[in-house]
Amino acid sequence: MTAHVSKDDDSLFASFLTKETFEGYEDPEKFKQYIPKIEQYKKALEEGILDEYKVEFPKPIEELVEEQLDAVDYLYKHKLLTPEEFEITDSPATEIVRNIGDGKWTAVQVFKAFAHRGTIAHQFTNCAHQLFVDEGLKHAQKLDDYQKQNGKLIGPLHGVPISLKEQSGYKGKITHAGYVGLIDNIPAKHAVTTQILSDLGAVFYIRTTQPQTLMHLCSGNNFSEKTKCPFNIALSSGGSSSGEGAVVAFGGSAIGIGSDIGGSVRAPAAYSGCHGLRPTTRRLSLLGGVSSGAGQESVPAVYGPLTRTISDIEYMMKTYINNGHPWDYDAWSLYMPWRDVPKPQAKDLTIAVIRDDGLVRPSPPIRRGIDTVAKKLKEAGVKIIELDPPNTKLAYETINKMYNCDGNEKQRELLAKSGEPLQRLTKWNLNYGDGARNYTIQENRKLNVIRDALRNEYNDLMVEKKIDFILSPAYNNVAPRPGEVYNWSYTALFNILDFPTLAFQTGLKQDPEIDVWTDEDKSYKFRSKLEELENSNYKPEEFKHAPIGLQLSGRRYRDEEVVAAGKLIVDDILKVNLLN
Amino acid sequence: MTAHVSKDDDSLFASFLTKETFEGYEDPEKFKQYIPKIEQYKKALEEGILDEYKVEFPKPIEELVEEQLDAVDYLYKHKLLTPEEFEITDSPATEIVRNIGDGKWTAVQVFKAFAHRGTIAHQFTNCAHQLFVDEGLKHAQKLDDYQKQNGKLIGPLHGVPISLKEQSGYKGKITHAGYVGLIDNIPAKHAVTTQILSDLGAVFYIRTTQPQTLMHLCSGNNFSEKTKCPFNIALSSGGSSSGEGAVVAFGGSAIGIGSDIGGSVRAPAAYSGCHGLRPTTRRLSLLGGVSSGAGQESVPAVYGPLTRTISDIEYMMKTYINNGHPWDYDAWSLYMPWRDVPKPQAKDLTIAVIRDDGLVRPSPPIRRGIDTVAKKLKEAGVKIIELDPPNTKLAYETINKMYNCDGNEKQRELLAKSGEPLQRLTKWNLNYGDGARNYTIQENRKLNVIRDALRNEYNDLMVEKKIDFILSPAYNNVAPRPGEVYNWSYTALFNILDFPTLAFQTGLKQDPEIDVWTDEDKSYKFRSKLEELENSNYKPEEFKHAPIGLQLSGRRYRDEEVVAAGKLIVDDILKVNLLN
Repeated sequence: MTAHVSKDDDSLFASFLTKETFEGYEDPEKFKQYIPKIEQYKKALEEGILDEYKVEFPKPIEELVEEQLDAVDYLYKHKLLTPEEFEITDSPATEIVRNIGDGKWTAVQVFKAFAHRGTIAHQFTNCAHQLFVDEGLKHAQKLDDYQKQNGKLIGPLHGVPISLKEQSGYKGKITHAGYVGLIDNIPAKHAVTTQILSDLGAVFYIRTTQPQTLMHLCSGNNFSEKTKCPFNIALSSGGSSSGEGAVVAFGGSAIGIGSDIGGSVRAPAAYSGCHGLRPTTRRLSLLGGVSSGAGQESVPAVYGPLTRTISDIEYMMKTYINNGHPWDYDAWSLYMPWRDVPKPQAKDLTIAVIRDDGLVRPSPPIRRGIDTVAKKLKEAGVKIIELDPPNTKLAYETINKMYNCDGNEKQRELLAKSGEPLQRLTKWNLNYGDGARNYTIQENRKLNVIRDALRNEYNDLMVEKKIDFILSPAYNNVAPRPGEVYNWSYTALFNILDFPTLAFQTGLKQDPEIDVWTDEDKSYKFRSKLEELENSNYKPEEFKHAPIGLQLSGRRYRDEEVVAAGKLIVDDILKVNLLN
Repeated sequence: MTAHVSKDDDSLFASFLTKETFEGYEDPEKFKQYIPKIEQYKKALEEGILDEYKVEFPKPIEELVEEQLDAVDYLYKHKLLTPEEFEITDSPATEIVRNIGDGKWTAVQVFKAFAHRGTIAHQFTNCAHQLFVDEGLKHAQKLDDYQKQNGKLIGPLHGVPISLKEQSGYKGKITHAGYVGLIDNIPAKHAVTTQILSDLGAVFYIRTTQPQTLMHLCSGNNFSEKTKCPFNIALSSGGSSSGEGAVVAFGGSAIGIGSDIGGSVRAPAAYSGCHGLRPTTRRLSLLGGVSSGAGQESVPAVYGPLTRTISDIEYMMKTYINNGHPWDYDAWSLYMPWRDVPKPQAKDLTIAVIRDDGLVRPSPPIRRGIDTVAKKLKEAGVKIIELDPPNTKLAYETINKMYNCDGNEKQRELLAKSGEPLQRLTKWNLNYGDGARNYTIQENRKLNVIRDALRNEYNDLMVEKKIDFILSPAYNNVAPRPGEVYNWSYTALFNILDFPTLAFQTGLKQDPEIDVWTDEDKSYKFRSKLEELENSNYKPEEFKHAPIGLQLSGRRYRDEEVVAAGKLIVDDILKVNLLN
């Protein structure tokens, strides 16, 4: 495409090698010592693929990538599962628990079906860092035994296979969070969230991929190949909960647990083809997770669920909070039970629509997505308000400064430990904000003051205009090509605001015939280099079948309302069904 | 007293002039320009004392101080109010609202009684920075008009006179927060909390004293004389909500609003002779308050009520939160309604007692207080556990570092603005932690990690031992002499833990005959210079009638449970009645 570049504004463009010299990171000699450990780690993953779950590709995987294979379509067309396995893995978690409770299925039966489907997902998408089907199977058997002996389920997630982002500490297993230097880190106990889910009856067998530093909305690390979108394996599954997006969208786990500090649950959900909730901070426990962010509270990360039904998000949040009592294990967990909020009626809702955040213009499929959804909501009786969101540039600049305001001290320490090669997008994110410059405490506090002013500005806006929710793109594009996602502005806005935000599927997929740049687009004058870079990456023919996902945000601590509205919108108005 | 000093440990002793050189603070030349403004400010206060509310002292105030006058006793003995004024001002807020609603009293009548009593309080204790009785009276009249016209009250605090700590922003009035340099700061609107209380029907007429920097558990600033304990005007009212402690304990307002980052609600409540709640962070809004702490989130301050009945604390918290909806005005306010928690039964409670925090040994009256209360609780059926609280030194050192980890940059800026003389206790607190050394962002984050580990250690302890509440001294002594409070460890522990904590009156007062150091005490080997300094300051004959207050703490976000248990303990078990 041809376009004019404005040279006025490149402040959002984290150009490589400007604010970071990357001195003190890479060390090829040191890294050599880690190579055998990485090989061993990879071998363990390879061995985790049970023979009976191996897929025979019709041609080399590179060619399937070249063809933009829809792996989900392939799964059904080539009947890679038995009808029973399809029935089980295409059931929502709520139904799985009910069916186990009723004796229709055993936990073992359910487990095997998901382990099979998830292992297939991995072979197409590289979604796993670790597979431990044997362990999971033993646990499922124990649950069946428990049920037989006690005549009841062990908890509200009895027998539900849940996938876990690798950075969540796992007892007795390497937990590296994308850093080679942490390959010897083996936690003595589960992270709080892992333990709570286990106590409620969940079964684990897969820990999923994430990028180096956890700070790409993509995958890419020194442990594994990049993770792919299951609906088009030439595209990225997103990140940083890269493997969660892929495995959940493919149907390899009933619920996935990701984490989100700038879009890391929502990007993989939106790109990969499932739903994902970024809850308000401190509702799910982060304790026992590994990252560079310990003690950083300007923009805390959150854990959040990825699923194929909105009801499963609700079920997970409710049981985790109300039955799991995270406040008994983590003093940071809000003592705030999950409230039963009825599904609202369309006519009672006011939704503000952001079509463009003023920073990076959405690509044609995203525009079609938002137009279609806004139109359907309006037809259903929702009051739609157009919203030109205030101060998005300030918000994005501020959060980028927050990420790196320690002068990348912690990232440098973690990366330098092994001297591992830096991924391209690692260099991109290390250049955020002021890169290697260490802020003073007062400078950091001033960022917090700006953040709070933004939060109050948006809160006031919602209160004064009686806006219930905000509908927006989850990214300015559908799933990007692997390694090519530069702009976080659409997701990160809701991290700095701390608005609970649901990334949801519209049911629409990219269509190379329809979703093209118009003539008007071609004479568009870019507002920044970042916008030019992002828009230039969208070439309609390269994004076949990419899912079109959007975001729904509500006021702080209104997670319940967001999810309830999500059910209305996704289930009733858009009639999306991700369970084939 | 004679005692042996251990030289092993003076790490808690913020000795003057060691970590801070105080360069760049004081500037006598610059300060000269502010003197006329201070004089004008003082004059306005003087003029705020209505002629009809003036007290004729029987002898010069210095002599009354010398005699350790009990001003509350004097108020009753010399009948400084009419019987009706006594009746009104000795009623709880709940009853005041009911009586106005029933037409027994008017808002004007109630207001005049409190304004009278509060103005007397000021003359004995120096509790006011500003008095504006005329304005309050007009507001009360408007409330009466509203009631007449609408046949109902304007809100659940209709006609309740509420005193406000000066640092809470007040529309159109100087808000200096104890800094001379801010004497020209006149907010364009009320702080959120002030506005919410006003909307609910509260009437204001007094803004109360606080120390320079807000960081003394005492008073002392360049605007006014030190504030005194109403039960012994030779002693300090505490701080930093110095005036709130004095005016509420004296009965000059039905409810007072203070703020607390290390004990600043609880110290003045305990020392002055009333109750005070330090709620969990983010339940009451801080927005629009002035301090050096903008953007500081390692140990956020909180607002909290001071009252003479525990039920009034409950009523204020409940109406403020459930009727005031702070989340509509401040995005930091937790969307956490005040829960109705029934008063517990003694036999169902387990209370852990801290008799000594391992840092500074309590003085004899405090020991008597805690022994008496623990004994009465046990007799009432409460299960009492002795608690040697873990890691109190680490907790205290960490919070002290948090206060000053910006190298005092903000304090220096605010103080240097006027070049005002530094108070002695200002120098003390500027030496906390590492004084003038600016921490790096990572160093600050490491403090947060220590804090979170402490929170989890105490949370685990409460969960594992099934401890409902912790009973502890609010300070190692009763009200100190003005300017002589050095140790915050008993209160600050619950700031770093973020445990909701109620400072309450035991009904006991210091008795110079009983509360003496024993022979055993006299051969005690001090654990630190801080302990020696604090203990040396207790001379039985100097603390006549000083109220004996203690603290009750619960787990984070269990404010409701703490207050409900407070009602059981204070009203039913100890049978304390501060409304004569």
